Amino acid sequence: MIEVYAFSTPNSIRVPIALEELGLAYKLKPVNVRKGEQKLPDYLAINPNGKVPLMVDSEGFDGSPITISESGAILVYLAEKTGKLLPREGVGRVRVFEQMFFHLTSVGPAFGQLGFFKRQAAEQIPLAIARFQSESERVLAVLEGLLGERQFVTGDVFTIADIVHFGWLWRREFAGIDFENSPNIARWYGQIDARPAVKRALQRVAALVPAA
Amino acid sequence: MIEVYAFSTPNSIRVPIALEELGLAYKLKPVNVRKGEQKLPDYLAINPNGKVPLMVDSEGFDGSPITISESGAILVYLAEKTGKLLPREGVGRVRVFEQMFFHLTSVGPAFGQLGFFKRQAAEQIPLAIARFQSESERVLAVLEGLLGERQFVTGDVFTIADIVHFGWLWRREFAGIDFENSPNIARWYGQIDARPAVKRALQRVAALVPAA
Ligand SMILES: N[C@@H](CCC(=O)N[C@@H](CS)C(=O)NCC(=O)O)C(=O)O
Ligand SMILES: N[C@@H](CCC(=O)N[C@@H](CS)C(=O)NCC(=O)O)C(=O)O
Repeated sequence: MIEVYAFSTPNSIRVPIALEELGLAYKLKPVNVRKGEQKLPDYLAINPNGKVPLMVDSEGFDGSPITISESGAILVYLAEKTGKLLPREGVGRVRVFEQMFFHLTSVGPAFGQLGFFKRQAAEQIPLAIARFQSESERVLAVLEGLLGERQFVTGDVFTIADIVHFGWLWRREFAGIDFENSPNIARWYGQIDARPAVKRALQRVAALVPAA
Repeated sequence: MIEVYAFSTPNSIRVPIALEELGLAYKLKPVNVRKGEQKLPDYLAINPNGKVPLMVDSEGFDGSPITISESGAILVYLAEKTGKLLPREGVGRVRVFEQMFFHLTSVGPAFGQLGFFKRQAAEQIPLAIARFQSESERVLAVLEGLLGERQFVTGDVFTIADIVHFGWLWRREFAGIDFENSPNIARWYGQIDARPAVKRALQRVAALVPAA
């Protein structure tokens, strides 16, 4: 049995997408980050970093359960467990790690901070907004260039690197970002969004949010 | 032949440390980020993301050269090429990815933004400084808790996850962070810093900075 602590967030969504793509059964355990449930003592006891997603696989190594935090680490674990969505060797494998780290260290932090300073900060700070706006546009241009040469972010095959990039591009409205000047990203996004497994994951995660 | 484009920076330092630990020969190619050399056309042609480090291994797969960006991806490549510093399977392997992603998505961005808003921003913005100060202290406390239970960041063995964490902890002064309330981190840091391979890497990287 696989349990995923998650909410309708850019980092959470990656895990259900990977599980749906891999055809693995899972149970979603909602952690409402809007209400701060990720900082409650019971949750901090299983994830001291106080973030979603978190995955518990009751059949980890040698039949023991394993708890894993960090969406990137969860995706690598699932890919290596099943032998899918991550080439076992060669250049393709290197490109998957390169794109995962590029997204998670550059795109994710830029979009996240931009959304915060635009929408959630107690005051509007032009210097901070400009900093994260230009960094978001810069990383988007890097990705746009790449997708001009590749069908998926690492080449001809769909991998966990596409799933990683999908997270924040799906939640781009939070950062006030669109694809108007990014036709290659728009083409790639449409292709990912149309995958049946992605649709199923988005539906299941949307159902975690209580009706207002 | 391995060539590493690098400067004396928290993300760069990881690659020479890994290469020294693995006993692999390499040539350092200085990219002076203080002078903006990472944004010159010749460099952008090999790394469109305009960052250091970047590694070129003339003996990649099937004898072809390979160019790799992202310090995390370079470390995974080197570890898998040599079969060292990253367990081949099991819980230990999962913990290495978990810690790499934790550092690179949490500690790195927090310290980097804190240093920027404290030292380099055109104006002092209390809200931004407070945001990244408290996030830096939070992630440091998470790591401190972990190192109360583990000798190295993933357990009993030194891995590429320790090398990843070392980067920003070595450059903590930029963010105005110290280890006064972090005895476990201080103990771990002293142990890493004392490794002969780490000393050699620090010396070689320091030599890249031109005398003022
Ligand atoms: N690097 C982590 C980031 C996780 C993360 O930032 N999750 C957000 C939701 S997208 C969260 O839990 N935020 C609540 C908080 O930070 O308190 C990952 O990739 O899993
Ligand atoms: N995620 C990248 C980050 C690389 C990075 O930010 N490098 C910095 C130096 S520590 C850099 O090149 N800065 C110059 C710039 O951003 O223009 C990695 O881990 O390699």
